[in-house]
Amino acid sequence: MKEKFLYSRKYKKENTIINLNKTKIGGKEIIVMAGPCAVENKKQIIEIAKVVKKLGAKFLRGGAFKPRTSPYSFQGLEEEGLRYLAETKQKTNLKIVTEVMDTKDVKLIEKYSDIIQIGARNMQNFSLLKAVGKSYKPVLLKRGLSATLKEFLMSAEYIMKEGNHKVILCERGIRTFCTYTRNTLDLNIIPALKKETHLPVIVDPSHAVGVRDYVIPMSKAAIAAGADGLIIEVHKNPEKSVSDKDQTLNFSQFQQLMKEIKPVAKAVGKIL
Amino acid sequence: MKEKFLYSRKYKKENTIINLNKTKIGGKEIIVMAGPCAVENKKQIIEIAKVVKKLGAKFLRGGAFKPRTSPYSFQGLEEEGLRYLAETKQKTNLKIVTEVMDTKDVKLIEKYSDIIQIGARNMQNFSLLKAVGKSYKPVLLKRGLSATLKEFLMSAEYIMKEGNHKVILCERGIRTFCTYTRNTLDLNIIPALKKETHLPVIVDPSHAVGVRDYVIPMSKAAIAAGADGLIIEVHKNPEKSVSDKDQTLNFSQFQQLMKEIKPVAKAVGKIL
Amino acid sequence: MKEKFLYSRKYKKENTIINLNKTKIGGKEIIVMAGPCAVENKKQIIEIAKVVKKLGAKFLRGGAFKPRTSPYSFQGLEEEGLRYLAETKQKTNLKIVTEVMDTKDVKLIEKYSDIIQIGARNMQNFSLLKAVGKSYKPVLLKRGLSATLKEFLMSAEYIMKEGNHKVILCERGIRTFCTYTRNTLDLNIIPALKKETHLPVIVDPSHAVGVRDYVIPMSKAAIAAGADGLIIEVHKNPEKSVSDKDQTLNFSQFQQLMKEIKPVAKAVGKIL
Amino acid sequence: MKEKFLYSRKYKKENTIINLNKTKIGGKEIIVMAGPCAVENKKQIIEIAKVVKKLGAKFLRGGAFKPRTSPYSFQGLEEEGLRYLAETKQKTNLKIVTEVMDTKDVKLIEKYSDIIQIGARNMQNFSLLKAVGKSYKPVLLKRGLSATLKEFLMSAEYIMKEGNHKVILCERGIRTFCTYTRNTLDLNIIPALKKETHLPVIVDPSHAVGVRDYVIPMSKAAIAAGADGLIIEVHKNPEKSVSDKDQTLNFSQFQQLMKEIKPVAKAVGKIL
Repeated sequence: MKEKFLYSRKYKKENTIINLNKTKIGGKEIIVMAGPCAVENKKQIIEIAKVVKKLGAKFLRGGAFKPRTSPYSFQGLEEEGLRYLAETKQKTNLKIVTEVMDTKDVKLIEKYSDIIQIGARNMQNFSLLKAVGKSYKPVLLKRGLSATLKEFLMSAEYIMKEGNHKVILCERGIRTFCTYTRNTLDLNIIPALKKETHLPVIVDPSHAVGVRDYVIPMSKAAIAAGADGLIIEVHKNPEKSVSDKDQTLNFSQFQQLMKEIKPVAKAVGKIL
Repeated sequence: MKEKFLYSRKYKKENTIINLNKTKIGGKEIIVMAGPCAVENKKQIIEIAKVVKKLGAKFLRGGAFKPRTSPYSFQGLEEEGLRYLAETKQKTNLKIVTEVMDTKDVKLIEKYSDIIQIGARNMQNFSLLKAVGKSYKPVLLKRGLSATLKEFLMSAEYIMKEGNHKVILCERGIRTFCTYTRNTLDLNIIPALKKETHLPVIVDPSHAVGVRDYVIPMSKAAIAAGADGLIIEVHKNPEKSVSDKDQTLNFSQFQQLMKEIKPVAKAVGKIL
Repeated sequence: MKEKFLYSRKYKKENTIINLNKTKIGGKEIIVMAGPCAVENKKQIIEIAKVVKKLGAKFLRGGAFKPRTSPYSFQGLEEEGLRYLAETKQKTNLKIVTEVMDTKDVKLIEKYSDIIQIGARNMQNFSLLKAVGKSYKPVLLKRGLSATLKEFLMSAEYIMKEGNHKVILCERGIRTFCTYTRNTLDLNIIPALKKETHLPVIVDPSHAVGVRDYVIPMSKAAIAAGADGLIIEVHKNPEKSVSDKDQTLNFSQFQQLMKEIKPVAKAVGKIL
Repeated sequence: MKEKFLYSRKYKKENTIINLNKTKIGGKEIIVMAGPCAVENKKQIIEIAKVVKKLGAKFLRGGAFKPRTSPYSFQGLEEEGLRYLAETKQKTNLKIVTEVMDTKDVKLIEKYSDIIQIGARNMQNFSLLKAVGKSYKPVLLKRGLSATLKEFLMSAEYIMKEGNHKVILCERGIRTFCTYTRNTLDLNIIPALKKETHLPVIVDPSHAVGVRDYVIPMSKAAIAAGADGLIIEVHKNPEKSVSDKDQTLNFSQFQQLMKEIKPVAKAVGKIL
């Protein structure tokens, strides 16, 4: 067993700041990533992107390859979706974060995305972790629904061991007995991770709580607990979204979120 | 089945504010309760009380009857402890919150305490709930480790049905697979409770996380999520505390907590 | 901390066998306790008792004091129910197991019941544990929904420390994320308890699974895993039962259960 | 949403029996798969295989690609391990079950293995499920640590939708708060699955409980609950095993297991 893991504060004491042009993740600024669950069509993604950009988001989220519980649910537009993201990036200058689900698609996602996302279900898909560990693009690693702190960090280590040290950790809820939220957003892991690792930590309240009304209070709580950023599901018309409609914010709700998190960020010494 | 439960916003729309002289729980002010896990001796409790009072606490917590996992652990000073609490109240003007564990002790606790606490292990001790439901003193009801939202609220209903509508709900962690915290503080329940009930909601981060270093960030997160108050374990010398030493703050840590939560309270429109 | 707990195999190596007249719990024979969730009226309880007796049950279960999540649900017939149990005992010679919920009722239950039951919600009601620890009647201690092995055994220790060493442990399901059963029957605790303690261990599959069709297979599994007995909910007409109707067996289903567990008992060296 | 899923008893009423030459999974016979956690070298695997074959196992298990929490742990012999398995098969006539971890390796595993295993961590690796869905070999699908019944069955559906209807479901423990077992073996899912699906269901007690002494009682319980088979970790010298040494049986323990499960199988109308 190695004595000092690459993710560890014993290996590297100061916080890792991931720098994409002028956007820094893990520093003084709270970074907000926003967008729809899935890329549905070109018009949809461009329209949403323009709004979230205007309201302060730095990244556009949106799935082209979608991990769905049922094989009969919409599986994403795949490469077509990636091209729409690329076009949207050109039009809005928003950076892109999108998910990879198969080792054979890593090169493709790398080409279109600024950050490569590993979803919660693939947190221990070790082949995929090794593959993105060879990429030069930063990786957003979502915590698995039943991942311990150690397992989460070890999955980051799989990526870092291959040479890619630009890993962003993302808490998105754990599976507990509670049913008033889709999953239980576990903000306790934020101070626990900050103690163990120098890597940036962001929070996905949308997937975690699964209830629109709780996204704003839990976003404020995430920042108060020390998160470096948020990833939020936003759609022009959540009711018509192909997926995750219960938790997706509409434009005015996202505007409200941005307004309410600003003083909280300031209260904990961060900026937005 | 009743159509409208007493705890429900359908029964009473506006927030319940529990008024003890000039101290209001459930209003604009964040209320902090602080003190040792257990009353150990007269000198200890008076000394701690003076400090937490000076730093802004409105209530002194401290157990005289202690629910301990092992029958060989310190079980509390019982009535002697209650008398020390009463003396401390006289000296400091702090209000008292302390736990009742047996129906036969309700009258005794009622005599000495401003708020009667029901511990997490007794959340579904229905005989005890009925007994405190007949008291004229407010009740602090802690959530059981595996209580659902419905069960928690129904336990409040047991108290209210007997006539005592002054119930304060307290989230103190749920039991999950996570081991980096003693329990998993479930802040998600704050917006969920605020939607369902008009009762005040406070948070006990000390018992929930069980790790001293996480108490401050999780206190800030609790307030950002909408909590009406905090209950915090504080001891002059946590290492010498008879119980809960891993999570208890010393005086300078509690001072730091009070300093750090103030701007967060302000950021969410509350005062401290 | 004590070196050897009273529950421990280090304190007492050989299995504890609790002997009520000729009925032995913890020995070679699988003991079945059966009956309705609640005592509803005299006719109901006598009728059920006669049938379960004929089919091989040694104990009649039936609640007179009922711990219900809602204060508006049927709370039991209380002493009237106890008297019906006593009358049924006289008529059928079945032994009685029924629940106590309040320290002030221990003497009353002791008078009417052969075994005093502590329900899952009161597993850490330490005042109640101390009170039944002073009784001369055996105690059936149900595991709390989120109780660890250590907590479960320590609650037995609370009883034993007061002098009552006749404790029967009962697994009745833990709270997990699973929803296809009401709780998750955790049979793994049987070999774990058998290793740690000399006390008898029985299983309540009815409350654990909450689904009638799963009661028989899980009863067989419980015996195969090493349980010393079962406690089963049986009603003449489960659909008309005042509580727990989803999981209660009717007479022919209970007959089927008794028939199917017999060869399993024999396969693991037990008799029925 | 489809009305009748391929896994459902509504789609196909009678049990699916998977027939590999004369070995039938899902029928009257309890099938035992046994072998080491990992293929370590040629001598090791052949020696273990000969013993488990003699004691009644029909399949040899053994990992060539190993999903390990840490990237610094032994990752398996890969194709070399597969060749050793092939050689062992020739020498012993045991059928082979081994794990695939990457879509690019499906063809390779298919060539060497009689059953392709999908590990718990990859239960929702949908790209991998689709890939093995195109194979002609049966698939052993392990339940993820926090998978619901629906998610588990939907992952089977991903495989079946691609044309491969030969899916064997395997319960291997869920993540709960319990720590006296590595995971909580959830036998409740056996009757629940048997109700919902026509697919065979086997149990892996070794990985679930993680404690050698509990493997035999839980194997008996699994069969009593209705499992169609077991997959057991066996090693000549568990203490020297490169992984999973705490739960692996030695030869005489495996012999004991085979001896003890035989009467239980008979008691529930099965043969061994």
